[in-house]
This record gives sequence, C-alpha cells and structure tokens, in this order.
Amino acid sequence: MMQLPSTLLENAVAEFAKLPGIGKKTALRLVLHLLKEEEEDVKKFSHAIERMRTETHFCKKCFNVSDGDICGICANSARNHRLVCVVENIRDVIAVENTQQFNGVYHVLGGVISPLDGIGPDQLHIDELIARVKTDGIEEMVFALNPNIQGDTTIFYIQRKLKDISCKITTISRGIAFGGELEYADEMTLGRSLANRLPVENYVK
Amino acid sequence: MMQLPSTLLENAVAEFAKLPGIGKKTALRLVLHLLKEEEEDVKKFSHAIERMRTETHFCKKCFNVSDGDICGICANSARNHRLVCVVENIRDVIAVENTQQFNGVYHVLGGVISPLDGIGPDQLHIDELIARVKTDGIEEMVFALNPNIQGDTTIFYIQRKLKDISCKITTISRGIAFGGELEYADEMTLGRSLANRLPVENYVK
Repeated sequence: MMQLPSTLLENAVAEFAKLPGIGKKTALRLVLHLLKEEEEDVKKFSHAIERMRTETHFCKKCFNVSDGDICGICANSARNHRLVCVVENIRDVIAVENTQQFNGVYHVLGGVISPLDGIGPDQLHIDELIARVKTDGIEEMVFALNPNIQGDTTIFYIQRKLKDISCKITTISRGIAFGGELEYADEMTLGRSLANRLPVENYVK
Repeated sequence: MMQLPSTLLENAVAEFAKLPGIGKKTALRLVLHLLKEEEEDVKKFSHAIERMRTETHFCKKCFNVSDGDICGICANSARNHRLVCVVENIRDVIAVENTQQFNGVYHVLGGVISPLDGIGPDQLHIDELIARVKTDGIEEMVFALNPNIQGDTTIFYIQRKLKDISCKITTISRGIAFGGELEYADEMTLGRSLANRLPVENYVK
C-alpha cells in the first residue's frame, strides 16, 4: 500500500480510485494535479460534480437526464413526437443524437430484460412506453438496443404487449460495420446481414 | 462537439475533461457513472476533493503536504533529522517513502532551477533549506532530483551556497536501472555508470 503524507490527500485519492478505470496511481496523479490548482478552480470542479448528481432530474416523459421536469428533446416542438427511439440508457441517447440523423424523440428503458441479472420488465420503464403510444399518438417505435439476446428479448416482449395497438415497430439495422472486414465478422452478424440484404438503391441512401 | 441533454451534465463533463489525461469521452463515462451512484456517495467524492485542496497545509519545515502545520515525517522523532533528502515535489517524497529505504526527513524544493521556464532560485524553497542546515544541524543532504540539466544545476547552486558550511552532500546513484538493458541505455547514463563504478561488495549491499 502506498503511504501518503496526509489523510485528506489519502481520502481524495481513495475517492478517485473508486471511479471505473481509475487506479490508485492515476488517482494520485489527478489529486496532485488538483492540489496545485487554484482553490477556486477546485471548488468549481467539486461543485459541478455535486450539482450534476443532486440537481439533475429525469425527464417525466422519456426518462432521459434533464435540467428540468421535461428534457430539452421532449420540449422541442420542432422534433417529430410520433417517432420514438427506444434505448437502454442515457449514453445511447447521446450516441444517437450525435449521428444527427434522428429527428424524433426518445424513451430510455433504464436497462434491458435480463433474467440472469434479475432484471424483469417491471424494473424497466416499459409500462410508461406503452402508455405513451396512446397518449402521444406514437406512430413508429425504433428500437436502438445492443444486438444481443437481452436486447432481442426486450424487443420481443414489448412487441407482444403492443400487438393489439397500431404502431409500426422497427429496429436499427444490424450488419457489417463501416470499415469492418467481412473476414473477421462473426457468423451471426454476417448471416443476418445476408438475410436482411437491401436493394442497392436503399443502401446508397 | 458532443451534445449533452443537460447543462449540469455538460458542466461536470467539462470539469472532468480539464484533468490531465482525461478526454471528453472518458469524462462522460465517469460522469454517467457518478450519476448512477447514490447521492451520498457523490457528495463524499466531491467533499473529499474540496477538503483536500482547502484544508491541507504545507509543512512549515519541509514543505511536504500535511494535515497540520508540521507533517507526520517531520514530527516523527524516530526518524533521523540530521539526514535530509532534497526532492523536487510531493510526488517524489511519496516515491522515496515507498522504497522504505530512507529513515531521514525531507525538503521539498517546489521545483528545480530552470531559466528557460523562468524558474530561478528565489521561486524555490532553497533559502529555507540553507537555514535548516544550521537550525536543524543537518549532517547529510541527499539530493533525489531527476537526472537532467535542471536537476544538476540546482544541486550545483545549492552546493555552492553551502561551501563554507560543513554538511555532507550526496546524490542518489545514477546508472542502469534494474531490469534495464545495457544495449538500450543512452551513452550519458552508461558512461557515467562506468565512471562511477562501485566495488562489488558495495553493490551487493
């Protein structure tokens, strides 16, 4: 164990080292960096972190993180509120937003159905999604979930719940990534991308 | 630029991204991690950082970081107060302490003489070191500075200041690191380690 000359320093290092991917050595480097910074700047840092946790809300409509009751995306009337992209978490909202290819709104499930991890439909925001189909008049639901068993199970579960309701259900396309090499693609991905082949005119779009 | 759904989130990411070696993507990962943590735990994190900066002192004797006016090392009467290890910064104190090979005390210069960076002797804790030689009755001063021109200049400057005072001045040995390969050592290091060759009986110690 590294010996530090101050318990205050030690506490700060221990707190940093709890973050994912930050080991004790990196934590010490960050803490010694902050120790050299102006007191005001360090206060700005710690207050920004604390406020981020204590003052952010979750959007009452889509469960995205938000500064107020309703997030900026749900409050934006220029977006298509009849097209909803269903994602697992906030990180995925950010990823889809950064493509600048989506003009609809979101619904954050807060996870995917995963019996092995003890996560069932009740722990996710699925009922709220079903309710939105009627109240918001959703016409299309695009699932942007990670392509694995849990994601597929979640899509299947929600699809069944919606079977008596008229709402188009789609999923982002799966296939060989741009820049990927066929040779290294797994059989599942390559197989599906053959089965779901697209006419070239669609592809060019 | 990444678009984030909340300005509070954005501020927290921006603050993390100011830390050395933390880019925007890593900052976002850390912030989203903290967003999932309990409010109490995030407060513990931010308070530990703030207290580390606002409540730590610098030891009045050796300028090491400290919880009080005098650091734990200077206050420890079991250590040899006539043997002082002179280092550039706190990180080096920690590095030497971790060897568990040193039972003396320290003096943190706060840098090394570097005219190109505008750092002269007056910006460093050199006068305080000279004063300690008399007041503390220092018998030996071991320089543990990085082996470069600035380090050597600093040793030379302090040595000259002490020329009329009886105090043994030494430096940590420089040479081929354990596990290093002769073949890849630079000429300066290899040349010096030949010139400063040691009798084998000393080496074995």
